[in-house]
Amino acid sequence: MTTNSLTTTSARDVDQALAARAALVVPGGMHGHLNRSTFPSDYPQFFARGRGTRLWDVDGNRYLDLMCAWGPMVLGYQHPKVEAAYQAQLAEGDCLNGPGPAFVELAELLVDTVAHADWAMFSKNGTDATTTCLTIARAATGRRKVLKARSSYHGAAPWCTPVLAGVTPEDRVNILEFDFNDVADAERAAAQAPGDVAAIITTPYRHDSFVDQEDVDPAYAHGLRALADRLGAALVLDDVRCGFRYDVRGSWEPLGVRPDLSAYSKAIANGYALAAVTGVDSLREAGAAVFSTGSFWFAAAAMAAAVATITELRDGTGLQDMQAAGQQLRDGLQAQAQAHGLAVRQSGPVQMPFLRFEDDDGSYSLVNRWCSETIQHGVYLHPWHNWFLSAAHTSADIDEVLQVTDRSFGVVAAGT
Amino acid sequence: MTTNSLTTTSARDVDQALAARAALVVPGGMHGHLNRSTFPSDYPQFFARGRGTRLWDVDGNRYLDLMCAWGPMVLGYQHPKVEAAYQAQLAEGDCLNGPGPAFVELAELLVDTVAHADWAMFSKNGTDATTTCLTIARAATGRRKVLKARSSYHGAAPWCTPVLAGVTPEDRVNILEFDFNDVADAERAAAQAPGDVAAIITTPYRHDSFVDQEDVDPAYAHGLRALADRLGAALVLDDVRCGFRYDVRGSWEPLGVRPDLSAYSKAIANGYALAAVTGVDSLREAGAAVFSTGSFWFAAAAMAAAVATITELRDGTGLQDMQAAGQQLRDGLQAQAQAHGLAVRQSGPVQMPFLRFEDDDGSYSLVNRWCSETIQHGVYLHPWHNWFLSAAHTSADIDEVLQVTDRSFGVVAAGT
Repeated sequence: MTTNSLTTTSARDVDQALAARAALVVPGGMHGHLNRSTFPSDYPQFFARGRGTRLWDVDGNRYLDLMCAWGPMVLGYQHPKVEAAYQAQLAEGDCLNGPGPAFVELAELLVDTVAHADWAMFSKNGTDATTTCLTIARAATGRRKVLKARSSYHGAAPWCTPVLAGVTPEDRVNILEFDFNDVADAERAAAQAPGDVAAIITTPYRHDSFVDQEDVDPAYAHGLRALADRLGAALVLDDVRCGFRYDVRGSWEPLGVRPDLSAYSKAIANGYALAAVTGVDSLREAGAAVFSTGSFWFAAAAMAAAVATITELRDGTGLQDMQAAGQQLRDGLQAQAQAHGLAVRQSGPVQMPFLRFEDDDGSYSLVNRWCSETIQHGVYLHPWHNWFLSAAHTSADIDEVLQVTDRSFGVVAAGT
Repeated sequence: MTTNSLTTTSARDVDQALAARAALVVPGGMHGHLNRSTFPSDYPQFFARGRGTRLWDVDGNRYLDLMCAWGPMVLGYQHPKVEAAYQAQLAEGDCLNGPGPAFVELAELLVDTVAHADWAMFSKNGTDATTTCLTIARAATGRRKVLKARSSYHGAAPWCTPVLAGVTPEDRVNILEFDFNDVADAERAAAQAPGDVAAIITTPYRHDSFVDQEDVDPAYAHGLRALADRLGAALVLDDVRCGFRYDVRGSWEPLGVRPDLSAYSKAIANGYALAAVTGVDSLREAGAAVFSTGSFWFAAAAMAAAVATITELRDGTGLQDMQAAGQQLRDGLQAQAQAHGLAVRQSGPVQMPFLRFEDDDGSYSLVNRWCSETIQHGVYLHPWHNWFLSAAHTSADIDEVLQVTDRSFGVVAAGT
């Protein structure tokens, strides 16, 4: 752990040994979104430690982390207030025969904080939360169909996974797709199932992988709200990725558009496993009617961590700090790329940055080269998925990132 | 926390205050299987603390617990070895940009311990694991249909939830049902979808709620194995509830029947949120092809806890101790009921006891009365779901339980 961010982090012995063992006992050696197989080969697969904005791999290489565990770390690894709340609850009890007081405190905090929320329910995965939203909407309406934006990610269940292996046509027969930011297309999709639309589900902005992120058109948010009202369907905001990183009141609150149901997970407890659905009064009865449960869904410690996390984000300057750090990063990267004569396109909220080389090829050669150089010098970025900043990222952290990225842009420019 | 097990535990002030607050901010005041609304009114909803076999509610009433958080606590609350492993990992890092070494160690341990396992994959809920098994089987076979025993519980997803609110017909169109322990009926179900059966899923024994538990007929286990082989379908053992409480090698290993895929959760990490799928080599490629992931699925601390839990169960006498305690409880309850002139029927493995009053009515009046008396005197049982023993339950614990149940049988007998 003596490696600093400007030293080449080349040791991979422990990582490679673990990967060789994993290849024997896990299909493909690793599954899921943390699988490094699609990253440049310099990326480590296995990690040992996290503190604030720093991450160590199993070989002791240190990284300044701009992925935040793909979202969960919103206050930085091992934030003292969150850890204190988690440990205090854990010392008493976690998974018991019923929830603890934190279940009530967290539901009250969500109702107080999230603008549309009259109630809350809990689970463990973002997919649990998005799926529960659809089930509640179907229970409330007695209808089957759900409108969903084309290529938007809502989780890894058969109805929404981006990978079709093992998915049957019947898993998707009730999903009707439309183009993000296109209300007319959503209306066309709705017209395919007159009287049978239970819900419209959307992310707050378009954060699909591999492509430029797309800001939400306010007319889209207002238009979907009006369409849902006209259809008598529930408007579901999938705030799993953005929630508590953009606006604690809900990611569409700045637009003045309130959903009927929201799905939260990732950042809700600063890394502890938790998800939540928040909803409006008119869907309360349906929320009580569905069977929403799991063996660990009422464990108290993650709920105590969530109370601490949301309170800190609501009352502190974390969201502003994160935005300032994100703006500094965006401005710095833009200036560097320009100085090196490289055309890059940055998109998405500055707290959840995405960068693409405009002249990149279908193999993502330029961004892979750039990320490869960057990871080798101790900064963890992602080549095709949005990154995540946390409230712990300081201006000095961003300066350090920019030192490394400047060098990486130079290598890319020299190679083109 | 001064209440002992023979003192009436009547204070419910804190519990009632929390329930009143929860009623405002959670649909129905509570959701899921821990909802006390179907229990006798004496049952507390909210809990504060667990140690070994003891549980405290939020009013400080202490219980000798025979539900073990509905299964997760297999070594007792806060087992020192599990806590030490969990805390040691947590102090370094939990939810990071990739898994830790515990991911590999746990997969290796499962492959070494579970008889059929050539590989393992991880998730957070039992429902994740059972659903992933079906997805893998479908990916491997390119088929759609799944045979499932009628009324068997496999989780809370739309394809399997026992509550139909919000479930569409299409969610179940690929599920074909048969009667547990009836191979001929499974064959009839298979005949409805020639060439299209991807999997047969079953629990190790019939542990449905409200009814007598039913031991597995060895001919059923062998017959399903043969049927799966004949169909070219995967045999999936849902070991979420029994796994690591009955036989660490897999719950059908004593019968000499090995599944192709097993689903584990509940007891796997002694209360920490984790689930696993284990599978055979011929399904490895399909396991790598499906997209199986979640925000917290690779967090290291729960995996470290699982390594400690499974190692302790494999190398220690916990499973034998649990069985001895369960047998003592079963024998004691039978003798007490008989002495009080009450006809009770006990069923299921002794480690996962189920008790029913033979002359009970449709409102479960007798068992509710009995449970009500028992909870009031500090023993936590369940009126209509199987109970769970842990390796921490001692002979003295069972003596203490039996003191209370004897009194409860007396009350029931006096009232009949």
